[in-house]
Amino acid sequence: MAVYTHLSAEALAELIAHYDVGDVRSAKGIAEGVSNSNWLVETTRDRFILTMYERRIEIDELPFFLGLLDHLSAKGAPVPRTIHDRDGAAYRTIDGKAVALIEYLPGVSVDHPTEAQATAVGRALAQVHLAGMDFAQSRANPLDTRRNWSDLEHTDPDALLSIDPGMAMVVAMAQRVAEKWPGDLPTSIIHSDLFPDNVLMLNDNVSGLIDFYFACTDAMAYDLAVTHAAWSFDRSGESYNAAIGDAVLAGYESVRSLEFREKQELPLLAQGACLRFVASRTEDWLETPPDALVTRKDPMDYVRRWHFYDENGASVFA
Amino acid sequence: MAVYTHLSAEALAELIAHYDVGDVRSAKGIAEGVSNSNWLVETTRDRFILTMYERRIEIDELPFFLGLLDHLSAKGAPVPRTIHDRDGAAYRTIDGKAVALIEYLPGVSVDHPTEAQATAVGRALAQVHLAGMDFAQSRANPLDTRRNWSDLEHTDPDALLSIDPGMAMVVAMAQRVAEKWPGDLPTSIIHSDLFPDNVLMLNDNVSGLIDFYFACTDAMAYDLAVTHAAWSFDRSGESYNAAIGDAVLAGYESVRSLEFREKQELPLLAQGACLRFVASRTEDWLETPPDALVTRKDPMDYVRRWHFYDENGASVFA
Repeated sequence: MAVYTHLSAEALAELIAHYDVGDVRSAKGIAEGVSNSNWLVETTRDRFILTMYERRIEIDELPFFLGLLDHLSAKGAPVPRTIHDRDGAAYRTIDGKAVALIEYLPGVSVDHPTEAQATAVGRALAQVHLAGMDFAQSRANPLDTRRNWSDLEHTDPDALLSIDPGMAMVVAMAQRVAEKWPGDLPTSIIHSDLFPDNVLMLNDNVSGLIDFYFACTDAMAYDLAVTHAAWSFDRSGESYNAAIGDAVLAGYESVRSLEFREKQELPLLAQGACLRFVASRTEDWLETPPDALVTRKDPMDYVRRWHFYDENGASVFA
Repeated sequence: MAVYTHLSAEALAELIAHYDVGDVRSAKGIAEGVSNSNWLVETTRDRFILTMYERRIEIDELPFFLGLLDHLSAKGAPVPRTIHDRDGAAYRTIDGKAVALIEYLPGVSVDHPTEAQATAVGRALAQVHLAGMDFAQSRANPLDTRRNWSDLEHTDPDALLSIDPGMAMVVAMAQRVAEKWPGDLPTSIIHSDLFPDNVLMLNDNVSGLIDFYFACTDAMAYDLAVTHAAWSFDRSGESYNAAIGDAVLAGYESVRSLEFREKQELPLLAQGACLRFVASRTEDWLETPPDALVTRKDPMDYVRRWHFYDENGASVFA
């Protein structure tokens, strides 16, 4: 969460001159994004988010991510659109790094959603799924269940245990999830990382879904399960909030009805969602020195959710 | 340059309700400030900078800093004003930390000022000095020349040399500056840290001077010398840009004429300005591990400027 690159006022003015958006009046580096730098740029006409892609994102994936924003926003989904330059390009480069100008949307990210907000989030997710169905591009999910299982399986068991004794069983749990994983659920473009951080809200309404850099082509019900796991628990995963969880599901189904087999698979999909965050957090935890300035996110927060879904999934998603 | 504290949307909304500024529509943590966290907050009425004081600033100094902004802006100096809450308070506290709401000013910080911009900076600095003369509060300069000399004198000589062989002579140089330091120059409130980072510009005009947390009561000509040293060289201090230096001086004098003795002392004051940044950068350099993520600022950049002023000060300020 930082600005990794110094962007001079002179370089910014030269960049913005390539767009039909007026002249720069202000630019503030904002503390968002883990693999890119972002600025809130104000011009004589409007405000924008300028994103510089620092790492992880391959430039050849940008047409997918930026085209997706255009496709979804054109269909009325609450997603910022990409601002194209005077030649129609969706991104430009500065000193070899790709930069994109993105529509600025108002709203704040909530820590403790109300039921009305959780309903709105479910609705917005379904809107994205419906709008994404006819997006011409596709992208395989790089963090699919087999990959997550494999990552945990190839982690030193002693290292796993060094995190928490409760990590002892995650490889066996992952294997079970991966082996039962359904391959035939209806797909669309999914966000796949719809945490509260990535949802802008104005009162009870969703003003924008942001940070689509994990978006890919995958089962829509899996995305709903990710969102359910991300919104319906306290941070530690010890306490499930049924009112919020139900609101996410009801909001989603008010826009797109789940098929019977999607509903049936939700308990397993939710465990797969937890598996994903256990795998990525385990990797980050073991790569980050305990005395680093960044706070390590505890994989156990999602092991606890996983057990919850394993034991209660059938009734939660009934 | 980070946001050190998580401020939830709920806590922000509760805070902003204490001010007559409308409702929160957006809040972005911005990558500014080294001892405080800052957010660009948009309400239904306007935009603001919200500052949370994390360290270094003592709460009992806030009435000075925040009252100063009000005083200077009321007198027409290009400075953001403090927004007071409904009870008239200049700051509030959240979880024991002081927070202040500050006027948002447009503008960008330039890396390579034009002469017109340097002139505008000199003018704005003189405006602040004139406006500050009748400010009722005062604050001693905690980083005065004797303190800077003393800090270097008490630094392990081997540590100094580990930075650069050129650091060998700084203690003797500092002693010479401190012993000749004039005590009777006209004073006002000075900014004392007017680097390009702390000046917002719209084209050739200064839209705002920001970050007054080093402001204090001291010689106005010293502040001009600090500004001259900060604006008129390349980063390393190897190359002096006479056109920019002259423009800073001419801009200043177009608003406030220097007295004869101020002019006479400028070569020494400029060396004192360099001494200050050598002292603070030396401390930061020796406290920051070489492999830390933050870039250490090289004290030698200001040793070079110091030699330049020692050799050429008389002609530069003639």
